[in-house]
Amino acid sequence: MLKRNLVLAAALGTGVLTALALPTLTTAAKTKPAPKAVNDGRAKCYECHEEVKALKEGSKHAALSCKTCHDKLDEHLKDSSKAPVTRLDHAVCGTCHKSQYDSFFEVHYDPNGARKEKGVPGGRSPMQDKLLAGHGFTFEHTEPRGHAHMVVDQFASDRFQGGRYQFKGGWANYDKVGKTWDILEDKGPNTKIPESAMAGNPTCMQCKTSDLTLKWKFLGDKGGKFDRTSNVNDVAKAVDNPLGCITCHDPHGTQPRVIRDALIQAVQSNTSGNIFSKGGKTDLKVVDFRGFRKIGVMEKTDSRMMCAQCHVEYNCNAGGQWSDGKPVKYDDSRTNHFPLKNAKEILAHYKKLDFYDFKHAITGARLIKLQHPESETYAGSTHDKAGVQCHQCHMPTKKGKDGKKFSSHSVIRPVNDVQAACLGCHPKDSAAKKKYQIETIRNYTKGKMRKAEYWLGNLIDTYAAAQRQGVPETVLAQAREKHEEAHVLWEYWTAENSDGFHNPALARDSLTASISASKAGVKVLNDAMLVKKDEKK
Amino acid sequence: MLKRNLVLAAALGTGVLTALALPTLTTAAKTKPAPKAVNDGRAKCYECHEEVKALKEGSKHAALSCKTCHDKLDEHLKDSSKAPVTRLDHAVCGTCHKSQYDSFFEVHYDPNGARKEKGVPGGRSPMQDKLLAGHGFTFEHTEPRGHAHMVVDQFASDRFQGGRYQFKGGWANYDKVGKTWDILEDKGPNTKIPESAMAGNPTCMQCKTSDLTLKWKFLGDKGGKFDRTSNVNDVAKAVDNPLGCITCHDPHGTQPRVIRDALIQAVQSNTSGNIFSKGGKTDLKVVDFRGFRKIGVMEKTDSRMMCAQCHVEYNCNAGGQWSDGKPVKYDDSRTNHFPLKNAKEILAHYKKLDFYDFKHAITGARLIKLQHPESETYAGSTHDKAGVQCHQCHMPTKKGKDGKKFSSHSVIRPVNDVQAACLGCHPKDSAAKKKYQIETIRNYTKGKMRKAEYWLGNLIDTYAAAQRQGVPETVLAQAREKHEEAHVLWEYWTAENSDGFHNPALARDSLTASISASKAGVKVLNDAMLVKKDEKK
Amino acid sequence: MLKRNLVLAAALGTGVLTALALPTLTTAAKTKPAPKAVNDGRAKCYECHEEVKALKEGSKHAALSCKTCHDKLDEHLKDSSKAPVTRLDHAVCGTCHKSQYDSFFEVHYDPNGARKEKGVPGGRSPMQDKLLAGHGFTFEHTEPRGHAHMVVDQFASDRFQGGRYQFKGGWANYDKVGKTWDILEDKGPNTKIPESAMAGNPTCMQCKTSDLTLKWKFLGDKGGKFDRTSNVNDVAKAVDNPLGCITCHDPHGTQPRVIRDALIQAVQSNTSGNIFSKGGKTDLKVVDFRGFRKIGVMEKTDSRMMCAQCHVEYNCNAGGQWSDGKPVKYDDSRTNHFPLKNAKEILAHYKKLDFYDFKHAITGARLIKLQHPESETYAGSTHDKAGVQCHQCHMPTKKGKDGKKFSSHSVIRPVNDVQAACLGCHPKDSAAKKKYQIETIRNYTKGKMRKAEYWLGNLIDTYAAAQRQGVPETVLAQAREKHEEAHVLWEYWTAENSDGFHNPALARDSLTASISASKAGVKVLNDAMLVKKDEKK
Repeated sequence: MLKRNLVLAAALGTGVLTALALPTLTTAAKTKPAPKAVNDGRAKCYECHEEVKALKEGSKHAALSCKTCHDKLDEHLKDSSKAPVTRLDHAVCGTCHKSQYDSFFEVHYDPNGARKEKGVPGGRSPMQDKLLAGHGFTFEHTEPRGHAHMVVDQFASDRFQGGRYQFKGGWANYDKVGKTWDILEDKGPNTKIPESAMAGNPTCMQCKTSDLTLKWKFLGDKGGKFDRTSNVNDVAKAVDNPLGCITCHDPHGTQPRVIRDALIQAVQSNTSGNIFSKGGKTDLKVVDFRGFRKIGVMEKTDSRMMCAQCHVEYNCNAGGQWSDGKPVKYDDSRTNHFPLKNAKEILAHYKKLDFYDFKHAITGARLIKLQHPESETYAGSTHDKAGVQCHQCHMPTKKGKDGKKFSSHSVIRPVNDVQAACLGCHPKDSAAKKKYQIETIRNYTKGKMRKAEYWLGNLIDTYAAAQRQGVPETVLAQAREKHEEAHVLWEYWTAENSDGFHNPALARDSLTASISASKAGVKVLNDAMLVKKDEKK
Repeated sequence: MLKRNLVLAAALGTGVLTALALPTLTTAAKTKPAPKAVNDGRAKCYECHEEVKALKEGSKHAALSCKTCHDKLDEHLKDSSKAPVTRLDHAVCGTCHKSQYDSFFEVHYDPNGARKEKGVPGGRSPMQDKLLAGHGFTFEHTEPRGHAHMVVDQFASDRFQGGRYQFKGGWANYDKVGKTWDILEDKGPNTKIPESAMAGNPTCMQCKTSDLTLKWKFLGDKGGKFDRTSNVNDVAKAVDNPLGCITCHDPHGTQPRVIRDALIQAVQSNTSGNIFSKGGKTDLKVVDFRGFRKIGVMEKTDSRMMCAQCHVEYNCNAGGQWSDGKPVKYDDSRTNHFPLKNAKEILAHYKKLDFYDFKHAITGARLIKLQHPESETYAGSTHDKAGVQCHQCHMPTKKGKDGKKFSSHSVIRPVNDVQAACLGCHPKDSAAKKKYQIETIRNYTKGKMRKAEYWLGNLIDTYAAAQRQGVPETVLAQAREKHEEAHVLWEYWTAENSDGFHNPALARDSLTASISASKAGVKVLNDAMLVKKDEKK
Repeated sequence: MLKRNLVLAAALGTGVLTALALPTLTTAAKTKPAPKAVNDGRAKCYECHEEVKALKEGSKHAALSCKTCHDKLDEHLKDSSKAPVTRLDHAVCGTCHKSQYDSFFEVHYDPNGARKEKGVPGGRSPMQDKLLAGHGFTFEHTEPRGHAHMVVDQFASDRFQGGRYQFKGGWANYDKVGKTWDILEDKGPNTKIPESAMAGNPTCMQCKTSDLTLKWKFLGDKGGKFDRTSNVNDVAKAVDNPLGCITCHDPHGTQPRVIRDALIQAVQSNTSGNIFSKGGKTDLKVVDFRGFRKIGVMEKTDSRMMCAQCHVEYNCNAGGQWSDGKPVKYDDSRTNHFPLKNAKEILAHYKKLDFYDFKHAITGARLIKLQHPESETYAGSTHDKAGVQCHQCHMPTKKGKDGKKFSSHSVIRPVNDVQAACLGCHPKDSAAKKKYQIETIRNYTKGKMRKAEYWLGNLIDTYAAAQRQGVPETVLAQAREKHEEAHVLWEYWTAENSDGFHNPALARDSLTASISASKAGVKVLNDAMLVKKDEKK
């Protein structure tokens, strides 16, 4: 094993070895006797890779040869400095798991089309151009498509890399799924289409693909082929697939798992009190691969954690420090960070972390740009307390072409298929009733979002008027602080994708707190302008 | 009868008796000979209650025993100081009128959900947070559900009582119908959720329930169990049902009737020229129950009056006086008042009444908050002139489970069921054509509403700029007056629920007058700012 | 022939004769031998009307007698000073072309209704009241209906003639098709309903009807019964039909043709490089009828030109001159002008022409009011390059009642019937996919439109603030220039009816250039206000 580790260490540019302490895993192991190890040459592999043996033997994948996923093994066995090739794409798994594979790549032709900008009347964030003024998302911020499109949609967004990456053949191929570079073309390094941004970076790709798993050290620190400071285009070129099966399923042993570094870090930093823990414990054994990368393995599937690898508020970009205003650049690990806090707690968390994302173009307030905090929002909700996990509503069981039931990997918005998503647990209710309930909660929450936006807009406009009128900086500073509070309490909810359904009470709480903060900011400015006007007389 | 009256008078806290002069009513009486009085003990009741005899004998309800609706009659007969119990809820009537009863409580699971905030893009009043700034409706102002939900929806609204009353079990039971306190829970007297209002009051409940009929003196003056100044929570606790059958149907004799006090007052004050009168007469005989309450009984059903008990602009809250700015509180009967005026006349009416609802938060203009003036709008329209009444479009005839036709008491928006609502009178037209016509009128009117809102918003913004610039108060006062005009001419139409269909010509007239007034206000301010700017030079 | 020409010249008030040089036309003539001339008296007509002979003989209409379309021929033959009557309405052609005729007058009952104002949230131009402030379209600017309604919809619009023309019987007859004055009524010359405009004029009717063909000299110069300076009401009264068959089909010979004067002028001024030309040539032979009017005849149908008679940006109203600000009135032929330029080129074109439409009410910027430049937008697009013409998508082939295929003259929005519009050329694709692609392009473009509007609004607001603050005129002038740029680059796309589908790349280019110009204008103003504020200190 020493030899293999040296090879790996050489390949990874690190010599540090970490002791492996693998838990005994797999439910399979508990219920039936482990089948005999197959005599297919794997024994030789196990001589060095004992952690793989621990995962694989006794598992549902025990019968699979190492060659199923690894190429060039013969060369590797002859000369261990020659690393084998590991096939990471979905098709490898899809050979057996056909229904799951097919459903993952299903294209849903929404009759209303895709690429809906959020910042339009009736959109998810109608006032975003004013409220996010100064942030890259104002260049393009569209409703997401399904997982199969996540890499190409990110790369082709006007905000990712100045429009350098476009769909081959243009709009006619916008619905294609498959390998990134079969779908997209590179318009060249000098491309910068008008009104686009260069906001893509290596970290933000970690939630779009698992292709970088073996090339990315824990948290994107230096040491792998790529790190947080790598050229974004170099990294992008290495991405062929959207998030793969291995993101949630250990390929050696089928154990439920997570691989996203910042999630693992966040859980490890608070195993007893994080949003997934029950009775002070979290079902996540963290396995450290020689100080290079870590995975977290579960005893039982907990899709709350699997989905939380991306469906969280996370920071994946450079920013500034609250304490002194100095920039925080990509060499700083705070640029790859999961808070796992809910809407009411998140500003305090970021202040403690000493990080903010950007300054508002008009007020100069230091603002947090939220991602999509579905997991934190869901935590502690009615459904969470009832033990419901994400996949139960979003990946309902369907019948495959082979007649067998499977968990659909075409992740759905439950409201689009209430029958499948809700009635399994609520058999006495009608689909009409369930849809009505969902939409009612969303209507109410949207009402509060729009009010929060009205008041934020009012605050921004009043600030500009006050500034022009020469209101003192001390007053402006108070207003900015209110803007900082009000912003995060609002944007959390346009970033979160359930329009309040995941946790209506928290949504109300947070959004009305946003309104109150904005109103307070408007008041302090208006009062000061009244004084100013009187001074003139 | 003296004895009974004394009992009642004692119960009601009034000793004044009014002579009963009941009209001969019921169409039944005219077409067939009155059946013989049934020998079920009612003769004894009639000894005191002769007005009941007049209503009941010869009517369709003649055969019913008094015990059908009244309990504890034996005790009452033995000791008349012990008042009987009168059952007011729908179920009593529903025993026989099953289809009507069932349809009243039908739950319509709108696929778009309920509780849609009006103040959102695409909503009924997209700019309301700015245009109604300073009014309680800015805390929550949602699209209404059907009649079965009207009490619980009012009580649970964020503006009613600080969020004190919530659905038991939360959103999961939002669709429940039945008794108020089976559906809602009281979160306690200290409840005040953020960004909520305490705008509920005893008068505004009069349009949601008929449960208070025997406890509320005419106009809510002092003398009943509750009056206009009663504690809103005490009154709310006494409300078990939404508006009952007795609101429109006399329970003793089935005569069409009205019971809403402010409507009766408004009609009585102008019997020859009100919006319902024909040829200088109104088919409404007002019966005064011993100076305590009044009902109005019709010869023939006129649902225009029945619906006008609520579907009107009415004042049901405290406010201020135009003449001197002094507050108008609940002890003042103007806080329970029906103008019955259309959009063009209403401001003059309220000025004459010397009442306004609230001051705008930014301009300080004295504004009228409109309710839902469907009746006044409809008055004089094409359909009204043709003799069409409300129920013909909103309560179309359907076939019940018993195979018999009945007037559906699940009140509909005609546009949602054009087939049933329109084609009875327009048999040559297609449903597609009728829907097209309705939506076309609404589209045109909505266009004007949005323009009126743009100009009101412009006036408010310009006012703020002018005020900051120190434009003279005389100019500001002129602008405020224009705001007062423009506001009521606009809000009438977002409050009214037909989007102009009830009376498209009046809608255009009123909304364009609003636009003209706003433009005039903007002009006076801009002119003054130009002078102001020149002075600086 | 001399005699006839003198008659015509006298009738037209012009004595100038232009030599006729008719091309040999009709594909029919090429494929089969011309049938013998029928002996129906036409020989006598041909003695004077040799250009008619050239068109008619050998064509598909060769067998038709002159009397088919012309009345009072006998009187004319006896006394050539008595002009015959020419029947121009669709019914004449409809006798034989029944399916085309019927489809033209089909009424589509849109379930969402008609007359949708564009300036509403979710509408085509949500911010138009601010962005077009000062222009007549702010009084009413609604989504168009089909061709059958185009005359009555124009006349009845609130901006056409102060509301003088209204639907007879009001909204109930809003769906009627047929003769103008069967549908509309004249409310009298003193009519001016509130918040309406008097923006109609003789030129703008040229795109709504072909009834004026024989009464309107080329470009509307003086010499015909009507000209550009005629009283708009006199002209309107002479319009009985929407654009007729003769607009695109020569009645004598069925040759594909165009008759709109400003289009012919624009093509003639640049035959080798206009948007329709291929290989430096345009398939349009212009026939000049004695200096009075011109038609353009094609060898082969090119619906790009036929539709470009109206579906272009054109100027049809008075305005002002860039050079000196002087008004351009209707006596100036620039008030009837087709630029045929795309969004990026159009401002330069109008500057060269020395014409702008109106000044913005707030900034005073000189703005172009765009019409509906579908043709210019389509030019050079993917579909255009592939040789696809307008009618292929908008007038798909259907089967008539007679079982024969015909090109539907009920012009459609392809997205409403993707099956018919797209799958003929894209047989491998599903309708769902095609609809998805169309809507996706539109979503993306709408996103950019809304952003352009946000920034234009921001520019206008900032301008007002800067002006109030006394920022120097030199700065304001720079901002106005940016407004002039940004406006036309934006409005082109809300005026164009495809939401970018006709040419998504050009849409992006233009709209982002608009955003950039607005941002530059905002910056120059904000910078100046900062200086101004500092001066105060």
